Amino acid sequence: MEKIAVLGAGSWGTALAMVLADNSHEVRLWTHNQEHANTINQTHANEKYLPGVRIPDEITAFYDLEKAVQDVSTILLVVPTKAIRDVCKQLNDVLHHPVTLAHGTKGIEPGTFKRVSEMINEELSNGLYKEVVVLSGPSHAEEVSQRQPTTLTASSEDIEEAKKVQDLFINGNLRVYTSPDMVGVELGGALKNIIALGAGISDGLGYGDNAKAALITRGLAEIARLGTSMNANPLTFLGLTGVGDLIVTCTSVHSRNWKAGNLLGKGNKLDDVLEQMGMVVEGVRTTQAAHQLAKMQGIDMPITDGLFRILFEEAQPKDVVDQLMTRVRRHEMEDLSHILSNRFSS
Amino acid sequence: MEKIAVLGAGSWGTALAMVLADNSHEVRLWTHNQEHANTINQTHANEKYLPGVRIPDEITAFYDLEKAVQDVSTILLVVPTKAIRDVCKQLNDVLHHPVTLAHGTKGIEPGTFKRVSEMINEELSNGLYKEVVVLSGPSHAEEVSQRQPTTLTASSEDIEEAKKVQDLFINGNLRVYTSPDMVGVELGGALKNIIALGAGISDGLGYGDNAKAALITRGLAEIARLGTSMNANPLTFLGLTGVGDLIVTCTSVHSRNWKAGNLLGKGNKLDDVLEQMGMVVEGVRTTQAAHQLAKMQGIDMPITDGLFRILFEEAQPKDVVDQLMTRVRRHEMEDLSHILSNRFSS
Repeated sequence: MEKIAVLGAGSWGTALAMVLADNSHEVRLWTHNQEHANTINQTHANEKYLPGVRIPDEITAFYDLEKAVQDVSTILLVVPTKAIRDVCKQLNDVLHHPVTLAHGTKGIEPGTFKRVSEMINEELSNGLYKEVVVLSGPSHAEEVSQRQPTTLTASSEDIEEAKKVQDLFINGNLRVYTSPDMVGVELGGALKNIIALGAGISDGLGYGDNAKAALITRGLAEIARLGTSMNANPLTFLGLTGVGDLIVTCTSVHSRNWKAGNLLGKGNKLDDVLEQMGMVVEGVRTTQAAHQLAKMQGIDMPITDGLFRILFEEAQPKDVVDQLMTRVRRHEMEDLSHILSNRFSS
Repeated sequence: MEKIAVLGAGSWGTALAMVLADNSHEVRLWTHNQEHANTINQTHANEKYLPGVRIPDEITAFYDLEKAVQDVSTILLVVPTKAIRDVCKQLNDVLHHPVTLAHGTKGIEPGTFKRVSEMINEELSNGLYKEVVVLSGPSHAEEVSQRQPTTLTASSEDIEEAKKVQDLFINGNLRVYTSPDMVGVELGGALKNIIALGAGISDGLGYGDNAKAALITRGLAEIARLGTSMNANPLTFLGLTGVGDLIVTCTSVHSRNWKAGNLLGKGNKLDDVLEQMGMVVEGVRTTQAAHQLAKMQGIDMPITDGLFRILFEEAQPKDVVDQLMTRVRRHEMEDLSHILSNRFSS
């Protein structure tokens, strides 16, 4: 049994804390909102983020970060991308012993184009952890909290650290694999949210499963192209944290990125959609980052480009989807061979 | 405007005939069932296979094969895999002029492990067509008949023949790409039906989207492994006829392979399921073929193997899915790297 701090009491942080509690660990679930912490401790529920789910007694919610991380063997960061740097800065003041450091956040920082592990490494004091571990894969928090069968991948530059995280989370409902491709795992998890927005828009416009499957397939090709240009292993995009996560996010009623896209496709404005959602929609900021990055890297990303125009330039969703569907590209392999050519053809 | 014979008046043959009619071609829709032909001509509907859809006047249903193929420029075979050889034998007696020959059938022949184009080449007299063209992709017939946006791939050993088929079908609702990888396109279309049965079983057992996404992802890896061992281009499995078709078949309410799996997952016996479906479920025979083939080729296909045990050896679906979920394979890349290693590592 270990003491573990999960930082971030949204739906995913809470669900992962529940897995750790199922595995008999002592879990501190930290939130920056004192009232939220009190409510969780009093009601053993997190009604805003995981309605109807009972939170086990092994989980205690904390508002005081110093107390939350005291004596823990492992810290799991599951805050939104835009809060990562701030929480790391706070950790610098209160963390003074070595830990295993993991995160379950899916995003890229606009402007810097940093992955979450890169942001953590820039902000956190050296010496207190070996290498960051990312935990990612096809996983709706709701289903994990219901102990539905789920698979995840733990990845790190230090595979021993990834194995430690694997051992903490693995159980009969949750299979955890390891991967050495940290870059591919982090990029796959972040970039799929762009395609999920697009899939939601297609559904919101009333298009069918054929159109959505085409969009997901072309989307996979373009995020793999961008990822490979950033030194991800192209095979990772074929795995659980690539196509697996893409499928679950694009085809499921639980996905908040899909939901946001769906509302956009039905004609709602971005500001209204974000207000209506009441949760962070990572795909919006990730679209912005990937759009800039693709320009810089000279990568063709027509779906990301179209979404950028819908989100930030008031393009009409129907016009953008129609343009994507009728794009002149007659030979499918032209698209696909670019993904792997960098890696394998030389 | 061309005269085109579509052989097979099931849902997919009828939907493809409608695309050709939309493109102003004269279409003969052949069925071996005289009453079915008469009903289509009298009612301009195909209630059994495409309920509620109006069939345009440019389409005439035929029972007489000789009349159906008279003077046509192109023949499109869309009969079930097990009827391919018989229809080709009939064609030998009545076809005496050169044509473009295409098919839209997804299957592998049990016992011989032949792809559909190979069966056609074995049965049909030489000299009347150049190379067979296959038309495949993520496409529910129902949506195509409703003019929903859809993408397909036309593939042939003779790319000029593929382009001819592309030109016949392409329009504002249907984008057709070409691919030179006939083997990969045919195998992707056939093998995905295995995984669709598995996805249906997972849903039928009450498992969630996380479990289904894991199954689809692992399934993609294993059909790509088998396909690559049979000289398919691994990139094809990343495209519309691979992951695209897999997604649409595994996640949509229209898919008959998913429906059959769903009924199996709910505890029904195979014979009862097939009777209840009333349509051909290609995945059942394809599972049998792929299971034998994987043994011969020495390819590890745990999902296909599990399905074979459910379909033909009375294994309990829950036991099989639980075994798949808890299989000891801790390093995801081991699985994935096999897909591409044959092709790229030498």
